[in-house]
Amino acid sequence: MSTSTHTVNGVDVDRLLGTIDHVSAEPALARFQFRARNTWIDGGHNRTTIKEFYGAGHEDTTRTEPFVLDADEPAVLLGENQAPNAPEYLLHALAACLTGTIVYHAAARGIALDGLECTIEGDVNLHGFLGLDDAVRPGYENIRVAFKATGDFDDEQLAELASLTRYSPVRDTVSNPVPVDIDLVRA
Amino acid sequence: MSTSTHTVNGVDVDRLLGTIDHVSAEPALARFQFRARNTWIDGGHNRTTIKEFYGAGHEDTTRTEPFVLDADEPAVLLGENQAPNAPEYLLHALAACLTGTIVYHAAARGIALDGLECTIEGDVNLHGFLGLDDAVRPGYENIRVAFKATGDFDDEQLAELASLTRYSPVRDTVSNPVPVDIDLVRA
Repeated sequence: MSTSTHTVNGVDVDRLLGTIDHVSAEPALARFQFRARNTWIDGGHNRTTIKEFYGAGHEDTTRTEPFVLDADEPAVLLGENQAPNAPEYLLHALAACLTGTIVYHAAARGIALDGLECTIEGDVNLHGFLGLDDAVRPGYENIRVAFKATGDFDDEQLAELASLTRYSPVRDTVSNPVPVDIDLVRA
Repeated sequence: MSTSTHTVNGVDVDRLLGTIDHVSAEPALARFQFRARNTWIDGGHNRTTIKEFYGAGHEDTTRTEPFVLDADEPAVLLGENQAPNAPEYLLHALAACLTGTIVYHAAARGIALDGLECTIEGDVNLHGFLGLDDAVRPGYENIRVAFKATGDFDDEQLAELASLTRYSPVRDTVSNPVPVDIDLVRA
């Protein structure tokens, strides 16, 4: 998908390397804060809007309209299948992040990809969510991702592609503990 | 949002309690496997489809069409703002899961909610993603969620609502380590 010597995998490598230089020289530019707002609709149905974020030293104003994402549950989980459920969105977040991370880091290393696909699956034991067994965690017990890649790379670079996922923000967030502070008050 | 003595918060409490009984009596019914498939499009843009899952002892066939979710990056992260990015989707997954968990568990306890909203934000230091500093994690350093609830509940029940989030699958997935197995082969 290279269109010039400066673009690899659809990523502007000059800008990517420039970003690395800027962020390296001025660490405050590396601070990002992402945000979302969620409103319950009814039963298992709720809606998130996403628009502003902070990064590279300023509030981002490039999005004129918010992204709107619904979540719901399938019938077996007492919902109406109007949207994916939250654990499925987490799999999407992880798959999308692994893919983007491989694509960007491959571009920075000059590894040109033609295609990249993955399937992802995760196991949940509902005894955790339902509070039936304290020994069963509510969340994913494990997650498996299977990538298939095509492109102009040798076997050494193929092995490198998988290892690039160590830089994935969502992989790290899922693989390692993140402090989550939750406050709930009367409106 | 109660419409009968059997529905609280839009959740069919009889079915919910019935599900708990069934899953308790036959633990194999508690096993769920969620899945997604992701395809890279170009640069920071990729697309996930979600349809089938396994749960309650069988493959679910209630979804006739797949859900399609795009991910992209904003301009400052070399994308074209065509969709939220992966870390934003993770915040959505967490907010949606916390909301659904509160709503379902409140229904099971007979706590009727009129409204439930939250804002969620998470901090990322780009030095981790860019590989500039091994001491900086690529993922979220911390996440904060602020809920506002309205409804027919007393202060004791208000305090209970926040504690119900301990049953949230995505909260557990983010707060505690999950093994993530990643395989990448040539297509």
